[in-house]
Amino acid sequence: MTYTVEFEPIGIRLICEEPLTVFEAARQAGVSLHSICGGKATCGKCAVRVVQGALPAPMDTEREHLSEALLAEGWRLACRTVVAENITIYIPPGSLEESQVVQTEGIEIAFAPRPAVRLLPVEITPPSLSDQASDMERLAAGLREHHGVENIIAGLPALRALRTALRETDWRISAALRGDEIIAAYPLAHDRAVGLAVDIGTTKLACYLVDLESGRTLAMQGVTNPQIAYGEDIMSRLEAVLVDSANAGPLQSEVATAINAVAADLCASQGLTPDHLLDFCLVGNTAMHHLFARLPVGPLAVSPFVPALNTALEVDAAQLGLKAAPGARAYLPAPIAGFVGSDHLAFLLAANFGEDERVRLGIDIGTNTEIALQVGKRIVSCSTASGPAFEGAHIRHGMRAAQGAIQRVKIAADGSVECDIIGGVAATGLCGSGVLDALAEMRKAEILNERGRMQTGMAGVEAAEDGKPAFTLVKGANGRRNITISQQDIDQILLAKGAIRAGIDILMDTLGIVSADIEEITIAGAFGTYLDPVNAVRIGLLPETPLERIHAVGNAAGSGARMMLASTDCRLRAEALAQRVEYLELTIVPGFNKYFARGIRLPVG
Amino acid sequence: MTYTVEFEPIGIRLICEEPLTVFEAARQAGVSLHSICGGKATCGKCAVRVVQGALPAPMDTEREHLSEALLAEGWRLACRTVVAENITIYIPPGSLEESQVVQTEGIEIAFAPRPAVRLLPVEITPPSLSDQASDMERLAAGLREHHGVENIIAGLPALRALRTALRETDWRISAALRGDEIIAAYPLAHDRAVGLAVDIGTTKLACYLVDLESGRTLAMQGVTNPQIAYGEDIMSRLEAVLVDSANAGPLQSEVATAINAVAADLCASQGLTPDHLLDFCLVGNTAMHHLFARLPVGPLAVSPFVPALNTALEVDAAQLGLKAAPGARAYLPAPIAGFVGSDHLAFLLAANFGEDERVRLGIDIGTNTEIALQVGKRIVSCSTASGPAFEGAHIRHGMRAAQGAIQRVKIAADGSVECDIIGGVAATGLCGSGVLDALAEMRKAEILNERGRMQTGMAGVEAAEDGKPAFTLVKGANGRRNITISQQDIDQILLAKGAIRAGIDILMDTLGIVSADIEEITIAGAFGTYLDPVNAVRIGLLPETPLERIHAVGNAAGSGARMMLASTDCRLRAEALAQRVEYLELTIVPGFNKYFARGIRLPVG
Ligand code: FES
Ligand code: FES
Repeated sequence: MTYTVEFEPIGIRLICEEPLTVFEAARQAGVSLHSICGGKATCGKCAVRVVQGALPAPMDTEREHLSEALLAEGWRLACRTVVAENITIYIPPGSLEESQVVQTEGIEIAFAPRPAVRLLPVEITPPSLSDQASDMERLAAGLREHHGVENIIAGLPALRALRTALRETDWRISAALRGDEIIAAYPLAHDRAVGLAVDIGTTKLACYLVDLESGRTLAMQGVTNPQIAYGEDIMSRLEAVLVDSANAGPLQSEVATAINAVAADLCASQGLTPDHLLDFCLVGNTAMHHLFARLPVGPLAVSPFVPALNTALEVDAAQLGLKAAPGARAYLPAPIAGFVGSDHLAFLLAANFGEDERVRLGIDIGTNTEIALQVGKRIVSCSTASGPAFEGAHIRHGMRAAQGAIQRVKIAADGSVECDIIGGVAATGLCGSGVLDALAEMRKAEILNERGRMQTGMAGVEAAEDGKPAFTLVKGANGRRNITISQQDIDQILLAKGAIRAGIDILMDTLGIVSADIEEITIAGAFGTYLDPVNAVRIGLLPETPLERIHAVGNAAGSGARMMLASTDCRLRAEALAQRVEYLELTIVPGFNKYFARGIRLPVG
Repeated sequence: MTYTVEFEPIGIRLICEEPLTVFEAARQAGVSLHSICGGKATCGKCAVRVVQGALPAPMDTEREHLSEALLAEGWRLACRTVVAENITIYIPPGSLEESQVVQTEGIEIAFAPRPAVRLLPVEITPPSLSDQASDMERLAAGLREHHGVENIIAGLPALRALRTALRETDWRISAALRGDEIIAAYPLAHDRAVGLAVDIGTTKLACYLVDLESGRTLAMQGVTNPQIAYGEDIMSRLEAVLVDSANAGPLQSEVATAINAVAADLCASQGLTPDHLLDFCLVGNTAMHHLFARLPVGPLAVSPFVPALNTALEVDAAQLGLKAAPGARAYLPAPIAGFVGSDHLAFLLAANFGEDERVRLGIDIGTNTEIALQVGKRIVSCSTASGPAFEGAHIRHGMRAAQGAIQRVKIAADGSVECDIIGGVAATGLCGSGVLDALAEMRKAEILNERGRMQTGMAGVEAAEDGKPAFTLVKGANGRRNITISQQDIDQILLAKGAIRAGIDILMDTLGIVSADIEEITIAGAFGTYLDPVNAVRIGLLPETPLERIHAVGNAAGSGARMMLASTDCRLRAEALAQRVEYLELTIVPGFNKYFARGIRLPVG
């Protein structure tokens, strides 16, 4: 059973399957809500109003920030309000993150739509025995007369569709043009040019239906990347193809099928069908890009990890198995390197990298973390294998930031633990930000030493079933299991932290700057939205930086993809950016191991 | 069992399945042999020499034209020499038709090859961890350095192939470029750019393998159009789709499959594979064009018979199901109108229409006959449904111009009939030129009156099984059946003749000229090659014209297709020609029926 969360006045619809906080729903819809506490109900910045749908009872933490009058009017904290059925949410301008890049009503417009495809109404003279001119000649005459468009052309799929459409619409059509190429024809009444932006993540496909003329996102839905059946991480996907090249077909087509299914839902929510999709922009890491384009991935899997190309690709949507308007094409922005993909490029575009010369750090935290450092005219990027620990995977009680997840941990001086749980229900696990919080607090309470070893004998530390020490966060009541964090969990997280911090430090040394020089840190990815900057600095994940310089932008790759979908100017900007970003291969940097060892260490926050 | 006829010094190979005269084999290979008598062994112009292979015994008619010394050296008349196994034939320059347009050694070069695709050798620096540039960057660098080519691009299929090819060839390749687009990569040793020209006829597919750089035809093969299973004529093919649109797929793919099979044979004869095919040019009548491009044919089948487009189309070869180099495209020249196809355009191109302002008539005789009349700067074309009578179909004893076909008929004053049979064997039927000859002779002997009615009571005229009169040409000996020509046969032929002559007369009246103004008549199609101009004028198929002004050019559509395949200049010339040729719809010409009735009449030759 799916349900829809509608955001006003932005007008975005998110189609969901599982219960979510409004904060998470907004993030998935590409709307970054303001937050200082990272969704812990302490900053009170994320207030929204439930306009339609079941009004949940306010929680105690919400009462601290919102008056009874406001609560009665439906105001709630987005990070505390769990939704599971159709609902309409009003987001006041003050609750929107300033770096918002998706063009929406009432918010700063970060880009001007300049779509590659437009719809034009045309009335055409029907043929007769004394006027046997071809379909294309007649259409060309109509477009010349009504719109001054000259020398139109058409590819085969559009020609085929056109021939039927002209006759079914009685020679009165809405013609879709990309430059001087006709790509589709609809009945005159259809005048809404739409396209699909997709962020092909290793774990999730995020699809956005966008109005090409206004640049507005009309509806959004995320689904699991079906490639997950071949393994969770990038390398297992590549290996599936290397071991048996017959897997390349299904690995591609299953993703296309999943996108088609979501696209059909999104279109249906607007009274449209996939035939109406006029343009596509798809971003992803380089492995996802190559797998989706059916480019041989062998050279990506072995040193020196060379991509097939590092420029944008524009191909027929049909060539990729995407259901669309007959002549629709798909724009695949440039991968930067074997391990820095077009999703990172989209993030840098959305975050306005390259538009000024400030010292800026951009981090997209995921299983692979891509980092870019801008200093003056230079932008250097690198990639580091951080593993899925920050996404809650490979952590014993790890889970996504959903209902029941421990999101905040506080360890008092007496060793007692206080946990804050999404949805205010009984704890079922730990999400990424909870893990980070636990780590910082455990270090502060000296349960962990500087090397991250758990100190047996401390309150709460007990040997788990496997004999290794584990720290109990929540004691299971009513037959529920204990929620613990084990030494192995800590190790996973420290390895991830070490990898990311090493990357940051190497980039800083390469460009000759120190922490104090950093003017802005922009963090993308789901994890970033929930990240408490205080903790991130406390555990040494980020360099020492004033908190107001650290910003989370949610799925900025999706935002960048939407910008490139609706604006050819943004495509040009991205293409220039792709040429400009230098790639640094961390593994051949002398002293890499030292950076890594230093990055693992836990400072006393 | 196929066998090969090789022509020297031209270097064309024809792959055949059935016994053929050398004259016919040459015609199918696109080489027009000189002939005044239309292949009747009376003019002696078609002398060739058997260089290798079984030397057939000379026939009496050959002895009349060739000395014993020449016969001993292997000289024979092409129109009398039947081949059925591998053979090599030398064609002396004097036996070649002057209007030869295929560029060959020792013959007038009618066009300069300027292929759309070229092969360039490139050596590329392999990647390393300290040089992780993408495949395309490296290739671009190589092409820039070795050839000064800048800003190369590549489509998806080429990118896929390239990635593998670069590594298999150790980074030393022969790169195929169309403009600045890489379309394929081969090992460095491969340096022969080849493409395929195809004339998609309603009954036959003629395929030519062409060296793109020299413009030379390397090998040729014709096969039956597999669509014949859906009916012999164009209308039955269109109907097959209109009755059940599910037929559109097979009607296209079966043709593509047949072309692929022939292409594989032709490539193999040169030590190549279809992967090496870099370019295609396919011509055909508008129905064949639309069926092959999978364009909806409904509007072609009903008035006002409007084509989808009247411009050239360039599409991915793969989109048409053609096996080729990864990024190869197929060029489909412009159809002129619903019933005047790109095959007619190719004929006009090959025959140099539009290059001067003489009064010229161009006729392509087939089931549909297309006629073009050039007067000054104007070229007007029309189409007329002449039926298959001239191709020997729907004639009771009709057959193709193969061994056993009556080719020439002479009726003496005493009513005795003398027949000339291809291969000198016993007669098995009548080919198109034999039919025409019989008609002229029967009219001369007054066996037919001016309206084409057979005069019962004349010698040789008897009631056939169906009670209708029939004229016996050859009495069957040794249990063989009689070869006759019936009143119904005569009617079929007169209908065809009437339709063609009406078209010619209407064009002449439209452009205000009379027979005496005509400076040249060019006849294309298999039938034209065997046509005796004397008879054609005698029966009134052609207007009264001095014989030296009438030329047969064989499959000129195939020649035009080869020119457009190997020369982008020729494509531009054809595109200009297509815009210039005016189409005249005969059925709405006032008085059409009168023209037709007059065209049917048989003058006393
Ligand atoms: S209160 Fe800080 S994000 Fe909700
Ligand atoms: S003798 Fe005239 S064509 Fe052979």
